[in-house]
Amino acid sequence: MRLRNRFANLLHLSAWKFTPYQILALGFAGLIMIGTLLLMMPITAVNGQGLSLVDALFTATSAVCITGLVVVDTGSHFNLFGQSVIIFLIQIGGLGIMTMATLMALVIGRKIQLRERLVMQEALNHMTVAGVVRLTQSIIISTLVIEFIGGTILAIRWYPDLGLTGIYFGYWHAVSSFCNAGFDLFGNFHSLTNYVDDTIINLTVTSLIILGGLGFTVIFDVWNHRKWQDFSLHTKLVLFTTIILLALGTLVILLLEINNPATLGTLSWKGKILASYFQSVTLRSAGYNTVSVVDMQDATIFFMVILMFIGAAPTSTGGGIKVTTMSILIAAVWALIRGKNDAEIFQRRISQRLIYKAFTLVFLSTALVVIVTMMMSIIQSESFLKILFEVVSAFATVGLSLGITSTLTMQGKIVMIITMFAGRVGLVTLALALALRTKRAKVQYPEGKIIIG
Amino acid sequence: MRLRNRFANLLHLSAWKFTPYQILALGFAGLIMIGTLLLMMPITAVNGQGLSLVDALFTATSAVCITGLVVVDTGSHFNLFGQSVIIFLIQIGGLGIMTMATLMALVIGRKIQLRERLVMQEALNHMTVAGVVRLTQSIIISTLVIEFIGGTILAIRWYPDLGLTGIYFGYWHAVSSFCNAGFDLFGNFHSLTNYVDDTIINLTVTSLIILGGLGFTVIFDVWNHRKWQDFSLHTKLVLFTTIILLALGTLVILLLEINNPATLGTLSWKGKILASYFQSVTLRSAGYNTVSVVDMQDATIFFMVILMFIGAAPTSTGGGIKVTTMSILIAAVWALIRGKNDAEIFQRRISQRLIYKAFTLVFLSTALVVIVTMMMSIIQSESFLKILFEVVSAFATVGLSLGITSTLTMQGKIVMIITMFAGRVGLVTLALALALRTKRAKVQYPEGKIIIG
Ligand SMILES: [K+]
Ligand SMILES: [K+]
Repeated sequence: MRLRNRFANLLHLSAWKFTPYQILALGFAGLIMIGTLLLMMPITAVNGQGLSLVDALFTATSAVCITGLVVVDTGSHFNLFGQSVIIFLIQIGGLGIMTMATLMALVIGRKIQLRERLVMQEALNHMTVAGVVRLTQSIIISTLVIEFIGGTILAIRWYPDLGLTGIYFGYWHAVSSFCNAGFDLFGNFHSLTNYVDDTIINLTVTSLIILGGLGFTVIFDVWNHRKWQDFSLHTKLVLFTTIILLALGTLVILLLEINNPATLGTLSWKGKILASYFQSVTLRSAGYNTVSVVDMQDATIFFMVILMFIGAAPTSTGGGIKVTTMSILIAAVWALIRGKNDAEIFQRRISQRLIYKAFTLVFLSTALVVIVTMMMSIIQSESFLKILFEVVSAFATVGLSLGITSTLTMQGKIVMIITMFAGRVGLVTLALALALRTKRAKVQYPEGKIIIG
Repeated sequence: MRLRNRFANLLHLSAWKFTPYQILALGFAGLIMIGTLLLMMPITAVNGQGLSLVDALFTATSAVCITGLVVVDTGSHFNLFGQSVIIFLIQIGGLGIMTMATLMALVIGRKIQLRERLVMQEALNHMTVAGVVRLTQSIIISTLVIEFIGGTILAIRWYPDLGLTGIYFGYWHAVSSFCNAGFDLFGNFHSLTNYVDDTIINLTVTSLIILGGLGFTVIFDVWNHRKWQDFSLHTKLVLFTTIILLALGTLVILLLEINNPATLGTLSWKGKILASYFQSVTLRSAGYNTVSVVDMQDATIFFMVILMFIGAAPTSTGGGIKVTTMSILIAAVWALIRGKNDAEIFQRRISQRLIYKAFTLVFLSTALVVIVTMMMSIIQSESFLKILFEVVSAFATVGLSLGITSTLTMQGKIVMIITMFAGRVGLVTLALALALRTKRAKVQYPEGKIIIG
């Protein structure tokens, strides 16, 4: 409790008696409310008709939670003002959670150090007020610099085709890419399908997505230390699993879709590889697509569901249960199979407690996805796999769609709004809450024996 | 190692240098081979044409692993001899794994007692050769008594309708029910749909299924102690979760299907409730059905997939990851959410190690289901949910089918044969192997810090 209060003190909010989780949840809810009101205003729409309450709420939630699912097409429904509102919500939503989560991760890191007197591998800054301000500044400045560089490249690429609109598109999509938001302005739910074999756009957008999905704990560590052996365990694990998952995703998509005429079949070899890579990257929770996802094979779609569920790195703009969570669980299973008592990653022991937390996160996430999928398949008369895909896409803040979201009923929209919020704010809050938990049981019962399996 | 060897000694097999797992796997593989050869013989078939190798292998695997998925209809393809071969494979397969697993559970129980000096709640017999023989005798006699009683009730019910065939059907289906095998002789893949509102058949068959799915550790405990407070933790947990899951299954199926004209819609209230209850029971891995499962709503089918995956109790004829495994994981998650250090069930502490093992079992099971589902959706051109259902049905040895199994391609059949074997023999072996694991790591690395979620 002492440190939680300390953290609240840092934010000058202790007088209001909110826990950090409540601050986080309320902050996001407030931002969504503001966004909803703005998007309901007629001056945001090309046709002069503001969105209905539920559509505005859906769009604002999707933007703030950087999900990217849309009930109206961003490019054709919204005018410049509406589009600006959306990119603003994305930037605040993406930055907000990254900053909060990064700060809290450091607080938690400190807490572990103080309480359990472990030899910490990472050098943590003192969490003074000045430190918090400095770190927040670093995060904001780095975000703007990365988005500016990416945006400039895209603007240069699009200027010849689209003129001034091209420059606007460049920076707008750079923000949307780095924030893993997945919103686009190309109209008709086209996303980036027109640029399937454009090397510059593919590499720029994917680089922004990957950087956003690494999180600032990793970006700063790499920036400060440069050498692999100096990186923290967390950084090493995030980089390693990100590369593995990107490669695996590219390979499986390429293999399963190589002869599918509606997706990769008609593309050149360069196009096939670029498109497989792009779709693999986008699953880490960006939500853009360059080929038609709905035309993919069931096996590919199911594979994508798994990768979306895993998601990106913690304290990033990516969603899902996170690559670190998955790695810890795989390490735990591997250790048990090999008859070892402790799970190990890069020659570091993973505590039973951390495994326990990782498992809890996955268990609750799975339960949520299962329940929401059941509800949605009662509400919507669509094929099961499509519903599962859309639910996981919402939960993991990916935003890829097989076309269901634009045809949702009112109840369907409300369920999906809750899912998007739970998947972003709920999951990050849960992870933080779990990380802070160390209360001891007062009564310890004798150990019981149960047969499993 | 000492106790593993001791167990092998008990079985007089130590000279061959097989581990208990290998004995178990090889025994089942051998039984499947014998069954396959028999079912390929023309004298087993009504039309005088023995099954092809792959169909015979599929049927024998399904019988020995008490799965119940069939590529040819048992009632119309096989003659009396063929049907006898199948019920023999079911009885040996069902009894064999129950006996082996029960014995091993006791050995493991003893081992824990000796090694870790815990206060054991359960009174365990000394594992002398005489003790093993006595326990095995008890299991076999109890099985035959239960099957005889159930069979007699069914025979009396069917005799007026079917004459001598009715008596044969009574005992045959009693064995298939108690063994949770799900094979039936009613022809045309009809299962028990003709008896949807027949109270005697419904209650007799479901009682046999439930008893078989409790396992002898529970049946003997209840038989010997009679009172709830005298039951072992394992028994209490199995009974509690079985009742919860049966009630939940009945309720959800009733609610979701109540107005579906193809399933419960046209039935009387008694029929609706009986049918919901029967379908709930059958998911615990019997595989009979009294209404058309393929006509159920997607939400119901998905719900059934979850219940099938959970399955029944360990050391029973039921499949799945087992109710105890699921309960341990829920208790673990609940403890962490409430900020407690230890998971507790009925005022007994659950060791971190047991939670770890339960999680590993679920993780590997999920991975298998995901990979097989992906493979099957590449091989077969059926809807995703149907494939998922069929794969989980095979893995959890349920045997319910949405009709895919009878139209499988050669590759599909082979994948499903492997899945059935892995789901029964593999899973029980894995659970035993995990239970016996206590090796210590030689090097203990310093604890690492990773951010999850
Ligand atoms: K997204
Ligand atoms: K079965």
